[in-house]
Amino acid sequence: MTDSRKPVFLVIGAGAGIGGNAALRFAAGGYHAVMARRSDEAGLQRLVGQVEAAGGSASGTLLNAAEDGAIEELVARTEADIGPVHAALYNLGAQIGNRALDQTPHRIFELGWRLATFGVFRLAHALFPNMVERAKTGAHGTLLVTSATAAMRGNAGQHSHAAAMGGRRMLCQTLNAEFAPQGVHVAHVVVDGAVDAPDTLGKLLGDKYEAFKQKKGREGIIDPAALAETYWHLAHQPRNCWTHEVDVRPWSDVAWWNDNPDPQIDARGKGFAGPKD
Amino acid sequence: MTDSRKPVFLVIGAGAGIGGNAALRFAAGGYHAVMARRSDEAGLQRLVGQVEAAGGSASGTLLNAAEDGAIEELVARTEADIGPVHAALYNLGAQIGNRALDQTPHRIFELGWRLATFGVFRLAHALFPNMVERAKTGAHGTLLVTSATAAMRGNAGQHSHAAAMGGRRMLCQTLNAEFAPQGVHVAHVVVDGAVDAPDTLGKLLGDKYEAFKQKKGREGIIDPAALAETYWHLAHQPRNCWTHEVDVRPWSDVAWWNDNPDPQIDARGKGFAGPKD
Amino acid sequence: MTDSRKPVFLVIGAGAGIGGNAALRFAAGGYHAVMARRSDEAGLQRLVGQVEAAGGSASGTLLNAAEDGAIEELVARTEADIGPVHAALYNLGAQIGNRALDQTPHRIFELGWRLATFGVFRLAHALFPNMVERAKTGAHGTLLVTSATAAMRGNAGQHSHAAAMGGRRMLCQTLNAEFAPQGVHVAHVVVDGAVDAPDTLGKLLGDKYEAFKQKKGREGIIDPAALAETYWHLAHQPRNCWTHEVDVRPWSDVAWWNDNPDPQIDARGKGFAGPKD
Amino acid sequence: MTDSRKPVFLVIGAGAGIGGNAALRFAAGGYHAVMARRSDEAGLQRLVGQVEAAGGSASGTLLNAAEDGAIEELVARTEADIGPVHAALYNLGAQIGNRALDQTPHRIFELGWRLATFGVFRLAHALFPNMVERAKTGAHGTLLVTSATAAMRGNAGQHSHAAAMGGRRMLCQTLNAEFAPQGVHVAHVVVDGAVDAPDTLGKLLGDKYEAFKQKKGREGIIDPAALAETYWHLAHQPRNCWTHEVDVRPWSDVAWWNDNPDPQIDARGKGFAGPKD
Repeated sequence: MTDSRKPVFLVIGAGAGIGGNAALRFAAGGYHAVMARRSDEAGLQRLVGQVEAAGGSASGTLLNAAEDGAIEELVARTEADIGPVHAALYNLGAQIGNRALDQTPHRIFELGWRLATFGVFRLAHALFPNMVERAKTGAHGTLLVTSATAAMRGNAGQHSHAAAMGGRRMLCQTLNAEFAPQGVHVAHVVVDGAVDAPDTLGKLLGDKYEAFKQKKGREGIIDPAALAETYWHLAHQPRNCWTHEVDVRPWSDVAWWNDNPDPQIDARGKGFAGPKD
Repeated sequence: MTDSRKPVFLVIGAGAGIGGNAALRFAAGGYHAVMARRSDEAGLQRLVGQVEAAGGSASGTLLNAAEDGAIEELVARTEADIGPVHAALYNLGAQIGNRALDQTPHRIFELGWRLATFGVFRLAHALFPNMVERAKTGAHGTLLVTSATAAMRGNAGQHSHAAAMGGRRMLCQTLNAEFAPQGVHVAHVVVDGAVDAPDTLGKLLGDKYEAFKQKKGREGIIDPAALAETYWHLAHQPRNCWTHEVDVRPWSDVAWWNDNPDPQIDARGKGFAGPKD
Repeated sequence: MTDSRKPVFLVIGAGAGIGGNAALRFAAGGYHAVMARRSDEAGLQRLVGQVEAAGGSASGTLLNAAEDGAIEELVARTEADIGPVHAALYNLGAQIGNRALDQTPHRIFELGWRLATFGVFRLAHALFPNMVERAKTGAHGTLLVTSATAAMRGNAGQHSHAAAMGGRRMLCQTLNAEFAPQGVHVAHVVVDGAVDAPDTLGKLLGDKYEAFKQKKGREGIIDPAALAETYWHLAHQPRNCWTHEVDVRPWSDVAWWNDNPDPQIDARGKGFAGPKD
Repeated sequence: MTDSRKPVFLVIGAGAGIGGNAALRFAAGGYHAVMARRSDEAGLQRLVGQVEAAGGSASGTLLNAAEDGAIEELVARTEADIGPVHAALYNLGAQIGNRALDQTPHRIFELGWRLATFGVFRLAHALFPNMVERAKTGAHGTLLVTSATAAMRGNAGQHSHAAAMGGRRMLCQTLNAEFAPQGVHVAHVVVDGAVDAPDTLGKLLGDKYEAFKQKKGREGIIDPAALAETYWHLAHQPRNCWTHEVDVRPWSDVAWWNDNPDPQIDARGKGFAGPKD
């Protein structure tokens, strides 16, 4: 159900993890949430139902973001039929698991770029002219971009993912450089830890997912509802205090720039410093 | 006036800008704010009065943070007489204006380190054992560190400031690496733009301050009250979603990693790419 | 003319600037240089002639690197007909000048990725299995990648270039993570300044090129022959001392992480520190 | 023995590892090497002897770099009695092994800064005015700074080292920003792996050193003579092609920005991508 008096929050990549929780949070804050995802109409409708059960307003659509014209059409349709998109979340990942170079076919590498880099470009291309126009009268315009550790450094097996996410981060910087002074805010969020996301990590791990979560513990895996609070905060920073880049991780995780905890720090707090320091 | 039933928010570097506004925000959220600053007892009492006028609880103390034992004594006294420090803000800067190397005496360089790097170390040394103890039963423990662009890169004239802030950033990373898994959260905030701070930038610019603010405009200079909202957000992220590093700047500022806006992008949106790209 | 007793140095992107000079340097050091470039057969033959005039050995081929199979075929043909490629230089850029987002068509953005990111992936895919095989008996295997400031940060107008170069850098990191321990060395070189390159910068600037060079001075623009010495050095570091990332710029340029020289440092060496520090 | 017709290469931190090997390399290239180290007169004289046996010219002096005036006096004395310092290497580390915060006393933290950050500042203060003067007539002026992974990120147990090295890196950037355009080149070298250095790593590991080296293998530990070649290269880049930052590591090491090799990439080259990607 749509409510044309509300600003729209558009989510591309609306699974039961980050995307769905962000939709719930923004809907609770007064937005109409438009949720797009690749497949699983039933799952999508469940999310719409959840938002509505919480007293919010939402609608959903299936979308193959890699397809020519799909993102562009979604933006046009949303703005025409539902309302002005004041905040958007680009939440598509391109993680395919670790694969050695010779197990990473050309088409997989290209698809990674198409979903993780090109899609952000296409969304900005379609959405920002309207946002810039509205910003002239003081309206908010925010693009939240869920990103990954691979945007900061390339690790073994991550050829496709890291190349695509590295492009994503640099693109977010060029977008801010051009559009921040025009009133459109892009926030690049490095999610540097596992997220409790049944539709992505859950499917990647399959029947090992529950054991993985058990081992990490409730506080050891990012709660997408908590991350949604950070997204809400970022999207509503006033113009004189905008964040471009931020990271999040569970307290029990080492940051991407660190090694795993060094077993060589012994109980007396003194140890051998590794060759890396 | 103290209220022993409240958690304490300790601010080192409590001027009328970031420190004072953070105190206001945390007091509004239920903390007792303990504000420490180097000088200006009257200004300090004005801040305490402001917090109390807004219905909050605060106290203030003058402190020379560079002095041996001063930070340690403040922490001990606060925990003993007022209450457990659940959140702290290290807000001392070490900006001395741009000075060529031969205009940067050894003692100035050392003082920069003493205020900007060593002080953070000393505060963590004094405060974290208690925070770790309390974290075992689930309590929050947060150290917010106001940082500067100079923590990310050294610019001409910034010998003292950049060396001190670069040390600050790496120290925040080592603190998180050791203490995040023990329940203490350190957030390093790169303030990448001018802040409306009468007691620091105001004094640095002197009678040019008003003209500077006029030129920037209300939205072109970081409102410390807005930044205080980001501080509040960071200090209350749940354990499974902690931010270690974040930046903020006004919408109209270029990020530190960018050049000034390129006049060579002409009206047709196409131009000469500089040698730097 | 080929000389099958020599190791091969393969250059993709062999203009009169970096590519040609690297070929000259490696040929002088005993390699047979195979130079590939998109167009200008006459220019290519001039480079071959230059190498031979200096007593070296080289051959050239025209190549559209964006075309499916072209890089793969070049590698296969070179290894089959000329000799084992012990060092390669990926030297294709994707700079299109500064363009606002709405002046950056989708196909331009895609072409940028195809040349700057995908091409490196394809070259590694085709070349590294052979290099790994040879490395088992101790042979060198090096991929030099000319990169740009845009790999480190996205600037206004650089949507296509920065996204492509950011992907390039992360890819070089994943390649090193997988292949360095197998004996293949990837060096990512951030060229953070203008290069005296008639075939690229020269064409971009057109009849303003000579004036630009005049203004910069001989020492103010990167001499590709000097850069070729750094390439040679990198390609011949022994296995126990490999460089993954390095930057170069003229002495008179500010580094990408800095602003332009601050006019506010006055003659007495003391001045106003900008809001960015 | 001194030779006043030679340019001087000044090494602060001249042990049998990097410092001594750099001295050997620069002496072989025509410099007179002045080697300073904290202790072990016999070891120092062995290095002088090694240089002379190889046909070079060197002299040595004991120096407590942390002492007020010591670096300044060394520079003055060298320039007055031996000759103009055209290249210098600041090679003092401040690694104390991994220590938890409560095992890192204030004076240790301060000493780390004094050796790793303040010493570079003091050397530049004393040396650069002369280098700038000589650069006006085209002379080289280079300061090589051996740095560590801890300059790039703070790891657990590295409070003192990382704070000091982070300051060192930012200081090198401010020095380049002010002095590169005046003809003085600062190169910050991140040594991201163990070095075969009997006087530092050797002493840190004690009787485990030989086993450590055995395990790493000859190619798995940085050969300081190889690193000295990179130092030589950096110090002789022409003005139009200067490197400010570079890293080195053995081929078999993961770079600091990577995790340890992921056991989850299985033999088929496909695996589970960790939560960090």
